[in-house]
Amino acid sequence: MFDDEYFMKQALQEAQKAFNKNEIPVGAVVVSEQRVIARAHNLTELLNDVTAHAEMQVITSATNVLGGKYLTDCTLYVTVEPCPMCAGALRWAQLSRLVYGASDEKRGYSTISPFLLHPKTTVTKGVMANECSELMQTFFKNIR
Amino acid sequence: MFDDEYFMKQALQEAQKAFNKNEIPVGAVVVSEQRVIARAHNLTELLNDVTAHAEMQVITSATNVLGGKYLTDCTLYVTVEPCPMCAGALRWAQLSRLVYGASDEKRGYSTISPFLLHPKTTVTKGVMANECSELMQTFFKNIR
Repeated sequence: MFDDEYFMKQALQEAQKAFNKNEIPVGAVVVSEQRVIARAHNLTELLNDVTAHAEMQVITSATNVLGGKYLTDCTLYVTVEPCPMCAGALRWAQLSRLVYGASDEKRGYSTISPFLLHPKTTVTKGVMANECSELMQTFFKNIR
Repeated sequence: MFDDEYFMKQALQEAQKAFNKNEIPVGAVVVSEQRVIARAHNLTELLNDVTAHAEMQVITSATNVLGGKYLTDCTLYVTVEPCPMCAGALRWAQLSRLVYGASDEKRGYSTISPFLLHPKTTVTKGVMANECSELMQTFFKNIR
C-alpha cells in the first residue's frame, strides 16, 4: 500500500492546494520510515519570494522535524522535476532518494546539470507523471 | 566612495558575525541605488537548515523590502562565490549584478555550471578576495 504512487498522491494534494491559491501547482512531501514527516506547496507569489518553492520549504520543515540538517534516510516526492536551486539544496541535505512526477525540459535540473544532486541520491522519475503535468497544463491554460 | 570595496566591506562585516557564531563565515548585502537594502549571514548551524545560506536569506529580505520578487536593478555582494543552490535562486530573482570575493573551486557554481545564473546577470569576482578567503581559512583552521 505505501508505494511511490501512494506518496506521490500526497504530493499532488499539496500541488492542488497551490493551484487553488493561483500558485504554479507544485507540491512535495518528505517520507521517513514510511511516514510523511513534512508537506509543502509552492508559495512564491503569496510570499513574493522566489526561494519559496515546495522543495525548499519541505526541506526546512522536514529537517526541523528530524532535528538535524540532513535527509540521509528520507525520500522526497515532488510533482515536478526540481529546478537547479532546489537540486542544489537537496545536495546540501544529502537526500537519500528523490522521486518526481513530471519532467521539466526547460527548467529542470537534469537539463542544466545532472551533477547538481548529491552523488548518493537515487532518482526515480515519471511517477504519476500524467496527473502531475496535467495540473500544470491546466494552470498555464487558465492564466493565458 | 560607494565603490565595490565599500559594499564588500559591509558583506565582510556580516561574514564576521557568522564567524562569531561558529558559522561558516559568509556574508552578503544587496545594494539598490547605492544603498544597502538587506544584509544577512550564513545561519545553517543555528537554524539547522541547509537552505539558510547568506545569499538565500538576503534575497528573501531584499525582495521583502522592494515588495516584488525580482532583483533586476540590484547588486548582490557576497564574500564567497555562491553555490549552485544560491546561483539558482539568483537566477529566479533575475539579479542584475553579482559581486563576490573569494572563489570556491570545490563548491562554487562556476565549477558545476556557469549557466546557473540568469543570462542577464553580470559578474565581478575577486573583490577583497584575500580578506574574504582569510576569514574562511581562519575558521576552518580553528575547527580542525
